[in-house]
Amino acid sequence: MEQSTYRQQQFSKLSELIKDIRVAMLTTVDEDGSLRSRPMAAPQVAFEGALWFFTGADAPKVEEAQQRRQVNVSFADPEHQNYVSVSGTASLVCDRQKMEELWSSWFRTWFPRGLDEPHLALLKVEAEKAEYWDAAASTMVQLYGVVKATLTGKAPPAGEHAKLLVDERQAGT
Amino acid sequence: MEQSTYRQQQFSKLSELIKDIRVAMLTTVDEDGSLRSRPMAAPQVAFEGALWFFTGADAPKVEEAQQRRQVNVSFADPEHQNYVSVSGTASLVCDRQKMEELWSSWFRTWFPRGLDEPHLALLKVEAEKAEYWDAAASTMVQLYGVVKATLTGKAPPAGEHAKLLVDERQAGT
Repeated sequence: MEQSTYRQQQFSKLSELIKDIRVAMLTTVDEDGSLRSRPMAAPQVAFEGALWFFTGADAPKVEEAQQRRQVNVSFADPEHQNYVSVSGTASLVCDRQKMEELWSSWFRTWFPRGLDEPHLALLKVEAEKAEYWDAAASTMVQLYGVVKATLTGKAPPAGEHAKLLVDERQAGT
Repeated sequence: MEQSTYRQQQFSKLSELIKDIRVAMLTTVDEDGSLRSRPMAAPQVAFEGALWFFTGADAPKVEEAQQRRQVNVSFADPEHQNYVSVSGTASLVCDRQKMEELWSSWFRTWFPRGLDEPHLALLKVEAEKAEYWDAAASTMVQLYGVVKATLTGKAPPAGEHAKLLVDERQAGT
């Protein structure tokens, strides 16, 4: 299987898993080393290697994510036993065009002035590892892990947990 | 207000917030520094300073939590805009009596042999900080933070975010 096709399949799988979970929990590491979570409204767009969230550029979570960029985004839908964990690296992105692309009126709940909200920015989480809950096996299944995939450069053998290459040159643009 | 009364009120508040959220997400730090989450079935008991989860003593999450004991437990109920973050310290507890106290038949989904499941243990998360989402204010509100409370030794003034003393000698026993 072509690497790019394989990657796209894994992106589609993750998109499918999270598409109906509109609020995710973002976990960051505080300055004292403690882990903190808060809900984040997720734009309903296909996953292409990164998760995006609207944020105030001056929010404490942004400061935490800039101090220690490794974060986690979890998606939970207990009704369908659907749970997803995305480990990644956060950065603040101020890109008007990207904001317009991701914006929907739903976000006015948090940002009443829309795209003209002062200090509005995007928190981008470049995914490095993604796992989802396999209810039948009662375990997390790795959807992809960048390290192994980039080392081997090809799709994993059947029977092994699915892993997905995230080509960092292409992912999350 | 008596300190113990105040603490009990905050414990009750947290118990109320999480009582209908039966599956929480536990976030740990992996050996490579990445943050990982997975769902954990929560025993339906009143919060008394610690959260408890059944686990296999040999599970990867236990290893991660023992390598780096600071973890996060998040509770999400999007329907009611109810989101809670508990920052704490994890430890593995093998205490048959405590397991009997927390056990319910619901856990057989994950541990079919019940309390006789090999390697069954408890992961205890001693809460150090708890926050919940205030939808009206679109922000996380600190339910308690051990540092400030133990420094001041008394309830915070009205108008400030509520904080709760966790007396470590009493909490989570």
